[in-house]
Amino acid sequence: MSGAADTGARGAGAAGAPGGSRLRVRTVEIRPGAVVLIDQVALPQEERYVICRTWREVADRITDMTVRGAPAIGVTAAGGVALAAAEAAASASDPAAFEAALEQAASGLLATRPTAVNLRWALDEMRAAWRAALATPGATPAGVAQTLLARAQAIHDDDVDRCLRIGEHGAALFKAGDRILTHCNAGALATAGYGTALGVIRSAAAAHPDVSVWVDETRPWLQGARLTAWELQVEGIPYRLISDNMAGYFMRRGEVDGVVVGADRIAANGDTANKIGTYSVSVLAREHGVPFYVAAPLSTVDLTIEGGDAIPIEERDPAEVTTFRGEQVAPEGAPARHPAFDVTPAANIDAIVTEAGVLRPPFGPALAAACGGGECRP
Amino acid sequence: MSGAADTGARGAGAAGAPGGSRLRVRTVEIRPGAVVLIDQVALPQEERYVICRTWREVADRITDMTVRGAPAIGVTAAGGVALAAAEAAASASDPAAFEAALEQAASGLLATRPTAVNLRWALDEMRAAWRAALATPGATPAGVAQTLLARAQAIHDDDVDRCLRIGEHGAALFKAGDRILTHCNAGALATAGYGTALGVIRSAAAAHPDVSVWVDETRPWLQGARLTAWELQVEGIPYRLISDNMAGYFMRRGEVDGVVVGADRIAANGDTANKIGTYSVSVLAREHGVPFYVAAPLSTVDLTIEGGDAIPIEERDPAEVTTFRGEQVAPEGAPARHPAFDVTPAANIDAIVTEAGVLRPPFGPALAAACGGGECRP
Repeated sequence: MSGAADTGARGAGAAGAPGGSRLRVRTVEIRPGAVVLIDQVALPQEERYVICRTWREVADRITDMTVRGAPAIGVTAAGGVALAAAEAAASASDPAAFEAALEQAASGLLATRPTAVNLRWALDEMRAAWRAALATPGATPAGVAQTLLARAQAIHDDDVDRCLRIGEHGAALFKAGDRILTHCNAGALATAGYGTALGVIRSAAAAHPDVSVWVDETRPWLQGARLTAWELQVEGIPYRLISDNMAGYFMRRGEVDGVVVGADRIAANGDTANKIGTYSVSVLAREHGVPFYVAAPLSTVDLTIEGGDAIPIEERDPAEVTTFRGEQVAPEGAPARHPAFDVTPAANIDAIVTEAGVLRPPFGPALAAACGGGECRP
Repeated sequence: MSGAADTGARGAGAAGAPGGSRLRVRTVEIRPGAVVLIDQVALPQEERYVICRTWREVADRITDMTVRGAPAIGVTAAGGVALAAAEAAASASDPAAFEAALEQAASGLLATRPTAVNLRWALDEMRAAWRAALATPGATPAGVAQTLLARAQAIHDDDVDRCLRIGEHGAALFKAGDRILTHCNAGALATAGYGTALGVIRSAAAAHPDVSVWVDETRPWLQGARLTAWELQVEGIPYRLISDNMAGYFMRRGEVDGVVVGADRIAANGDTANKIGTYSVSVLAREHGVPFYVAAPLSTVDLTIEGGDAIPIEERDPAEVTTFRGEQVAPEGAPARHPAFDVTPAANIDAIVTEAGVLRPPFGPALAAACGGGECRP
C-alpha cells in the first residue's frame, strides 16, 4: 500500500447511509477532501480503510484493486473528480485552468482500468455536472467544487438505491431452498453498497427460507474466497466455498438451482463482460439446464458497442497467476496468461436483472427500452 | 513431512532407468529395503527425496500426497508390499503369519485413497505374486520377499514401458503447431516415469515442431502450476500457465487445438474419473469442437464398474480449498467442499489412448477387447 494514502480505523458501519440497516459494509465513502475505501486487498484477514486525499491516490487505488467491482470503481472515480475539483479550486489561476485540471483528472481516472464501463459513465456524469456548473452565471471554482462533491455523493447514494431495486427484482427469480452459485464478487464490496448479484442473493435470502450459496473462489485474485465469503459470513447467509473447477461437478449432481453474476460491461445485444471464468460457468449452466442470470445497474450497459467482441479485455500481470499473495507457486520464470475478464454471449443468459426490472431475451430491444433511447440514466 | 521418513539428496536422475535418456524425472524408485519418492508437496520450489523404509511410511506418503497420480500410486504401493515382505520375513514366525502380515500391508495401502484403481490393480498383482511364490515347493519368507521386490520393480519398469507406448500412440493425434491443453499432472510425476497425458505431449512435441501447452493450474492442489509446469520447464517444451477458469476463454478464441488428460479410473463404458475440473474442461471442449483425449494405461480400466456413477469420489479436507499452502485465504471458519475428482462421461471423450493403441467410441467393446476379456494385464 502506498504511503501516500492514510489508513483509517474501522469504518463507522452504515448508520445513516442510504439503505440504512440493510448495509453492513461501507465500501467507499465520499467526504469533503477525502475518499475512504475499505482495503479489498487486505480482506478478509484484515478489515482496514484507506483514506485518499488526491485524485491520483484514488487512481492508484483503482489500479491496484484496493477498490474493485464495476459500480464501485465508477463511484470511487466520481469521488476522485470531486477531490480534483477541491484541489484545483485552491490553486487554479482561472476557470480554463480549473477545467483543464478536471479534464486531466478524468483522463487519468479513466485510464486506470479498461473493461468496466461504469467508470466512463461516472466520469461522463461528473463532466456534465462541472460543465453545467461552470456555465452558471457567477460560477466560482469553489462553488463548482461543492457542486461536484454533492454530485459524487449523489452518484454513490444512487448506486445503493439501484442495487436495492436490483435485489428486489431479482429475488423473484428464486424460491425457497434454492442453492445459488455466484462467481467473483458482485456484492456490497463491488458497489457503493448491497451489491448487484449478491444484492439479488441478499434479497432472495430475505424473501425465501433456506437459500444457500455456492461461492466460486475466483482465481487468480480470489474475490470469491476472500470477499464474497466474507460478505456472506457477515450477513449470516449459508454458503460453501468451492474451487472454480468444481462448479460443473455440482451442477451435474443437480445441486445448483441457479447462477447469478455481476457485469463489467453489457453490449447493446446483451453480451456481457464479467470476471474471467464467468463464460465457462455460463456454458456449464446451459449444459445442465441451470438458469443463468446477470445482475447489473443500467450504468453497466454500453449501447455504443454492438456485441461483446468489441469489449476491451484487460490483461493483467501474469505474476498474479504464478504467485499467490507474493509467494511464488509455479516454477521461477513460468510463463502465464492473465485475461481478467471474459464475455458471456447473450444466448447463454436467461435474464438481465436491472434497477428497471428483469429483462428477458431478446436483449437488444429490452436494453434499448430500459435505457430510454440511449441514455442509460433513468 | 513425517520425521519417520528420511530425506535424501537429489536423485541420480534417470541414468540406467527404463526409457533411458527420455526420462529426466525419477518419481519413485524401488530399492531393497527402501522406496524413494520425489516429494511432490515441496515441488517446484524444492527438489527433494523422501526415503520410506516401512510399508506404513509408504501409506502415509500416499495419503499426504508426497506421491500422487494414479499409476505412480500403484507402483509405490507395490514397493510398499515389497517392504512389508522384507519386514515380515525378518520377524514372522511361520508362513501363515508372514502372509497375514502381507495382507495387512495390502489392506492398509489400499485404504489410502479410494478413487484411483491402479492402486488396487498393483496390490492384486503383488498378491498374485506372493501366493504363487508361497505355493512353490521349498518357499521361504526371505525368498518370497526377494520375489516380491523383483515383482514391484517389474511393475515399475512396466509402467514406464506402457507410458512410452501411450506417448507414441498419442503423438499421432496431434500435428505441428498444436496448442494442447492439459489439466492436473499426468506426467512423469504421476507415473513411474514419462507420463500418460504428458507422455503424449512429450511424444507430440518430439514428433512435431512448435507444439505448445496450456497448463491449467488445477486448484486446489495446483498440480498444474507446480508439477506440470515444472516438468515442461525441465523438458524445454513451451507452455503457458492459466487459471482453470481461463480454459473456456482461450477455447472460444480458437487458441486450443486439443485436450489430453490422464485418468484415475475408467469404467467399462469409458466414463473416466480424473482430477476435479476435468469434467468441466470436457464440456467446454465439446462446446468449442476441440478434441478431448484421455491417456491412461490399461491398469486404469475397471471392468467391474459399468459406468462412472459407481466410481467412488474422494472428498478431501476442505481446508485445502480455504487455505493456500497453510495460509488462510477465506474467512476463518469458512465452510467449503472438496471433491478431489469428477467423472467425464464417455460421450465427451473422443479417444482413450492406451499402451495397446488409440481406442475410439463405442468404448465398451474397445476397452473389453484391449483388456483381453477382463484381465487388463496385457
